[in-house]
Amino acid sequence: MQQKMQKLKDILAEMADLKGAIAVLGWDQQTYMPNGGTEARGRQSGTLGKVEHEMATSAELGRLLDELKPYAESLDPDSNDARMIKVAARDFDLATRVPSDFVVEQAQITAMANQAWAEARSKADFSIFQPHLEKIVDLTHRYVGFFPPADHPYDVLLDIYEPEMKTADVKKIFNELRPKQVELIKAISRKTRIDNSFLYQSFDEKNQWDFGIDVITRLGYDMNRGRQDKSEHPFTTGFSLNDVRITTRVESDFLSTMIFGSIHEAGHAMYAQGHSPELERTNLADGASLAIHESQSRMWENLVGRSLPFWEFFYQKLQEKFPQLNLVTLDNFYKGINKVEPSPVRIEADEATYNLHIMLRLELEIGIIEGKIQVKDLPEIWNAKMKEYLGIEPENDALGVLQDVHWSWGAFGYFSTYALGNLISAQLWENINQDIPDLSEQISSGKFDDLLSWLRKNIHSHGRKFMPQELVKKVTGSEIDPAPYLRYLKDKFGKIYGL
Amino acid sequence: MQQKMQKLKDILAEMADLKGAIAVLGWDQQTYMPNGGTEARGRQSGTLGKVEHEMATSAELGRLLDELKPYAESLDPDSNDARMIKVAARDFDLATRVPSDFVVEQAQITAMANQAWAEARSKADFSIFQPHLEKIVDLTHRYVGFFPPADHPYDVLLDIYEPEMKTADVKKIFNELRPKQVELIKAISRKTRIDNSFLYQSFDEKNQWDFGIDVITRLGYDMNRGRQDKSEHPFTTGFSLNDVRITTRVESDFLSTMIFGSIHEAGHAMYAQGHSPELERTNLADGASLAIHESQSRMWENLVGRSLPFWEFFYQKLQEKFPQLNLVTLDNFYKGINKVEPSPVRIEADEATYNLHIMLRLELEIGIIEGKIQVKDLPEIWNAKMKEYLGIEPENDALGVLQDVHWSWGAFGYFSTYALGNLISAQLWENINQDIPDLSEQISSGKFDDLLSWLRKNIHSHGRKFMPQELVKKVTGSEIDPAPYLRYLKDKFGKIYGL
Repeated sequence: MQQKMQKLKDILAEMADLKGAIAVLGWDQQTYMPNGGTEARGRQSGTLGKVEHEMATSAELGRLLDELKPYAESLDPDSNDARMIKVAARDFDLATRVPSDFVVEQAQITAMANQAWAEARSKADFSIFQPHLEKIVDLTHRYVGFFPPADHPYDVLLDIYEPEMKTADVKKIFNELRPKQVELIKAISRKTRIDNSFLYQSFDEKNQWDFGIDVITRLGYDMNRGRQDKSEHPFTTGFSLNDVRITTRVESDFLSTMIFGSIHEAGHAMYAQGHSPELERTNLADGASLAIHESQSRMWENLVGRSLPFWEFFYQKLQEKFPQLNLVTLDNFYKGINKVEPSPVRIEADEATYNLHIMLRLELEIGIIEGKIQVKDLPEIWNAKMKEYLGIEPENDALGVLQDVHWSWGAFGYFSTYALGNLISAQLWENINQDIPDLSEQISSGKFDDLLSWLRKNIHSHGRKFMPQELVKKVTGSEIDPAPYLRYLKDKFGKIYGL
Repeated sequence: MQQKMQKLKDILAEMADLKGAIAVLGWDQQTYMPNGGTEARGRQSGTLGKVEHEMATSAELGRLLDELKPYAESLDPDSNDARMIKVAARDFDLATRVPSDFVVEQAQITAMANQAWAEARSKADFSIFQPHLEKIVDLTHRYVGFFPPADHPYDVLLDIYEPEMKTADVKKIFNELRPKQVELIKAISRKTRIDNSFLYQSFDEKNQWDFGIDVITRLGYDMNRGRQDKSEHPFTTGFSLNDVRITTRVESDFLSTMIFGSIHEAGHAMYAQGHSPELERTNLADGASLAIHESQSRMWENLVGRSLPFWEFFYQKLQEKFPQLNLVTLDNFYKGINKVEPSPVRIEADEATYNLHIMLRLELEIGIIEGKIQVKDLPEIWNAKMKEYLGIEPENDALGVLQDVHWSWGAFGYFSTYALGNLISAQLWENINQDIPDLSEQISSGKFDDLLSWLRKNIHSHGRKFMPQELVKKVTGSEIDPAPYLRYLKDKFGKIYGL
């Protein structure tokens, strides 16, 4: 059996190499690749993807996994080997259920849909995207059909991004959250608006860059095992535990984009840099799920990066780079970066309104999968729900139903992970503060290593060993729970807005 | 047969994708990769290389090539399809003769040898490298043994880099060249030394960079299908016809490194950007050989970039960037960048002495392969030959026998291509000047498109369709011939030094 286990590890190692190589190609494409390279890059990534898919679905791998089942059952179920086999079996099942023809068809349809979406958004014209989205919805139904019946067909889609998460659970969590977040926003809207105009000035880009690098390296992002570059859309990507890169966007006339974008991506990257070295080049050297990943990026961005103690340490350094902030007090700066204001665009949303953007999308996706909502009706329903949850209506569909790229990729089931990540971050935060009682003082003196060590030990090191809900329960003692996030919001914004 | 031909093209296309991906990984490694990434990158490149090798040696490909042989014979021998089959059969033969075990052993031995070489060079201590080089020589003998007996065992090695080139031919060419180059250098050494100290001043790096970009884009390097970055050792790499990148090195206190390095690499890159689009993603979308490649880089670097007409156009622009050159006349600048001075280091050598560095290496390599020279005697023989050809002796082995990385890679047979490239460049140049009689005037007015078009049509577009000697003969009417290069050297340096 040892020999078979080694054979499995060899296969997983080569698959990890291929995924790493594909990720390098993707990183290059979004950072430095000249325009001329686009077509060939698509083919190169496609060919590597094909080779990787052949490995992932090979009869040899399937046989090996069958043969290793009894061995896995004989092991400590939490051992690396047992988990490696379990996760490999799950991945193999997912990869083999979907026929190759379908994968090719999907790639073609989404490539065209993505182009159509970009055009539709630039012209704020949903009708350009509509026929493509209808095809994608059709594909999505067919995808669901490849799997055994679930409690809810949407479970199959959630499971891609958030393993073992159920539609009923997400609905329950969001139903508890929604009225309370709506209520909070209403209470805030009755208070005096915060002035954050000082964030919209001219800020030297080099100084911004240097400040951002200083912040993320102090937080614990290891630049010997990573780097930051510029890209149109910030992202994190890893080629191994020792090469995890982030990108950021710098705006010359708005400070928040770079600062909070860099911290957010560094949060993802520290997670990836923190997987246990013994998981390297296995199928477990990855994040547990998108929600767990988002819990890390959001924690560093919001619970740390938008906190008062954080700026007690960093504000003077920021003012040294940007003397135009000398007239802004720390208190006003802190309020400015935490201003709550319903806006139509998700990625610009503040902490208090963000989850509502997600809930809206989830309801639409479930409606579509259940066949209760037609693609053609999406713009109207979108706008109505925006009005209901946030009290505003987008000016046009580019700022509404067309704002996100995800559907053009065929990525139904993805959005919830953003909101679940927020909830998990607050859940973990309560535990962390129990374990590190002087965390606020540490942060206000620029000390982040206890926090990072806690995350390394409890979250990062495990990689993909545990299912996300299992991991949350293991660490916090409970399933994903919206209460800590609500407590966090009420406390923070209660103080800021004097509620 | 059409179906089999298509099948061959499909396989070649996937191999091209893999090679492109491997090249992206290499580019990243030498430009932006953080230190931490080294180990994983080695594994990723290794795994992609393994997949590519499996494709290149697959029984399916072998069968297909056998079956296509009569078809190839039925075609116009110069047609793309016929050449594609011919070159594929050659590559398949090369790849399958060498057992996989040997390839793995070679990779291990050269990896260690490369490390030992770096240490030996940094300590100027040949004894550190000697046992590794002995292993490499042993490997090289075994490599030769995998091939049918040739006229000379060294032919098998030359053939790797310069297809179908024979040891006897190279020797004949070099024997004709050597005495005349030695004589020229002696004549120059009796003349007044040229002062080029103005090249060794402080030059702003950003200004250097901008000047270099201006030059190479004017020459015709297409930045929409390429880019320039910094790296320790300049190189050119291509991922497709539309993504060919170069790197350069900028020294703050020496101007020539960036200028001539950038032009040299742009010369390689324009060749790669110029292969006919119909060859894209086939085995023919590559250079004909290393010597042909070098003929392009050297032509742009030396015959164009170190010519007087070139600087009649560019010198004023350079002075605008660097006013410290205002006191240096164009004539003195031209002489300065063409100063002839024997130096122990090949990569710093001028046009008049360069080939002698190569001849020395070739003689040593042939001696080793013939078993007439022992590895342990290399330093002594090296120094004696340096004295004989260039009249100087290296201060230590770091500046002598240890200066080049190639042997640590196991790359015996490589060096000649540098000198052959020089010869070919001058041969082509005589033809070009016949076809474009006002070329000098064009260059002195910054017009390079006729020259580039000529190269595109006669050299670049063909890619790897023709064997290198075949291509030279097709274009110039003769085999590789040292006479034009000797004429070029005598004319140029005769004028500069008043011989």
